[in-house]
Amino acid sequence: MEKVKVKQNLLKKEIIKIFKKYKLSKEHALICAEALINAELVGAPSHGLSRLKMYCDRISKKLINPKPKIKIKRISQSIAHIDANNSIGFVAADIAIKTAISNAKKTGIGLVAVKNSGHYGLSGYYAEQAVKKNLMVMVFTNAPPAVAPHGALKSLFGTNPICFGTPTGSKIPFILDTSISMINRGKIRVAAREGGKIPEGVALDKFGKPTTDPKKALEGVQLPIAGFRGSGLAWMVDILSGVLTGGNHAGRVKDPFTDFSGPQNIGHLFFVLKPNLFVGNSFNKRIKDNIKTIKKLPKIKGVKEILYPGQSKYNRYKNNLKKEIKITKNILEDLNSLIA
Amino acid sequence: MEKVKVKQNLLKKEIIKIFKKYKLSKEHALICAEALINAELVGAPSHGLSRLKMYCDRISKKLINPKPKIKIKRISQSIAHIDANNSIGFVAADIAIKTAISNAKKTGIGLVAVKNSGHYGLSGYYAEQAVKKNLMVMVFTNAPPAVAPHGALKSLFGTNPICFGTPTGSKIPFILDTSISMINRGKIRVAAREGGKIPEGVALDKFGKPTTDPKKALEGVQLPIAGFRGSGLAWMVDILSGVLTGGNHAGRVKDPFTDFSGPQNIGHLFFVLKPNLFVGNSFNKRIKDNIKTIKKLPKIKGVKEILYPGQSKYNRYKNNLKKEIKITKNILEDLNSLIA
Repeated sequence: MEKVKVKQNLLKKEIIKIFKKYKLSKEHALICAEALINAELVGAPSHGLSRLKMYCDRISKKLINPKPKIKIKRISQSIAHIDANNSIGFVAADIAIKTAISNAKKTGIGLVAVKNSGHYGLSGYYAEQAVKKNLMVMVFTNAPPAVAPHGALKSLFGTNPICFGTPTGSKIPFILDTSISMINRGKIRVAAREGGKIPEGVALDKFGKPTTDPKKALEGVQLPIAGFRGSGLAWMVDILSGVLTGGNHAGRVKDPFTDFSGPQNIGHLFFVLKPNLFVGNSFNKRIKDNIKTIKKLPKIKGVKEILYPGQSKYNRYKNNLKKEIKITKNILEDLNSLIA
Repeated sequence: MEKVKVKQNLLKKEIIKIFKKYKLSKEHALICAEALINAELVGAPSHGLSRLKMYCDRISKKLINPKPKIKIKRISQSIAHIDANNSIGFVAADIAIKTAISNAKKTGIGLVAVKNSGHYGLSGYYAEQAVKKNLMVMVFTNAPPAVAPHGALKSLFGTNPICFGTPTGSKIPFILDTSISMINRGKIRVAAREGGKIPEGVALDKFGKPTTDPKKALEGVQLPIAGFRGSGLAWMVDILSGVLTGGNHAGRVKDPFTDFSGPQNIGHLFFVLKPNLFVGNSFNKRIKDNIKTIKKLPKIKGVKEILYPGQSKYNRYKNNLKKEIKITKNILEDLNSLIA
């Protein structure tokens, strides 16, 4: 599909204008615009502007609250519970990670649960905020049904990412942000939108047959990584981010693109800790040594460098930072119609 | 390989006698015996009696300290750091999970890191202790090199399990205890010992060729689940249990069976929390609803019941509880020679 180039600053201004038109405060509109543009810059367009129209549609249908009264309940100096009042996910997650960071700075650990939130983009984006403050972090969120539990014929778990971040002693953070599905649902959606195909072995159609057609895959089932192991990890994430937090779970998180019968009520869990809790100032030396040792291993033919999680994302980000952003004509049309 | 049946009580007494002969206190010998027998009862013989001789050998060679001075450093009401002084892993892990449980009872969360420990058997065994006290739990430990990092030609990560447990509102706990390797190293070792084979696609020999010969697999490389995703998860576990805690990491945990050049210095991390922190007493209803909803899904042909992680292990345990334990003649010989 044909793409057009747009200047980053211009794009940011437009997104802010759109969200403000949809009744978000200036502050909240900025949080959303930055998260969406970051997704484009790190090479995850499935979590970027391709979702902008969806967010606005859900605001119009009163399924996302543009003026949420977000309540932060302080349970202890380390623990807090946030009721996001159906805010857009970006805003709830931004407050939650900042609370978890602040608690961890004070007590060594911060645990923050969120309920009544929505899709917040990339888990890694929030993990990065903690790592930039020199903290270690785990982030869990659930998502609409996409993956069938082991033994089941129907999707129920979301792609339920496991996200972990740590400072590395260098400017490139270690950010693992891995879906429990063989393929990210957003990537299937982008392929469907752009008329592309998806790899073999990652999804089944609604009859249980393997497919490379993204539209058939969206109607069918995505496959979990590693059979019962991946299914168990997805179940763990559903419990940590849904059952524990007060969010929806057990397949009740609505697909934001197709289900307008109610708010998503997604739950998130943020766990932040000081990496020097146990080893003091030697942490920096230890993590550098860990990464250096692994990078020095003999490599498979054709592999130039062993990369740690987050490294290629960071490289794409750096590479894209000074460039104009390429968006499809579809998305340009969305932008123009939303702003009109 | 031919097996013989032994009464549980008798076996337990014999194991205690052996460990006491190897200078462990009565209390520590009991902890070890119970952990080893539990592994047999849940159907994980790779973590059971097949390791007894190895533990004793390491004590003889002064690589495991039978009379450890274990230091518990209290960092806050929630956080503690344990220096296990090269104790046998079972003992260090027992103290650590009990400390984490006690901290979580007091403050909502308990985070306990352990360094200078050794192989402790099954992570799920400790997770179960927390779940029995109606707590949620995550457990991480690293292990000797078995899995090659994504892009590398050499093993470095252990099978590094991710373990998560939660109360279920029923007597059968939800315990996910999943290695990041396609196959558990212990299972390969049992197959090698018993002259069996391992499945295809789980390991490579030392030349990088696929193999089903367990002996060749032990010399070669185990494959991680899901390529770079599994490799990233194994790396996360190495950081959480090794870099963070002060334990060995980056491939420096020694193989307890073959490397007698020093203690293992394994690190563990135990994170325990109250499941009612955010949703109060409704947690029980929520988790029951979660499991019930998932169990009700349409099933793949041939699947009778969708099982949650830990369910089949519990069923095996119940089933084996009143029975004599079957051990191979090799292991019987070990027992007899150790006791002699």
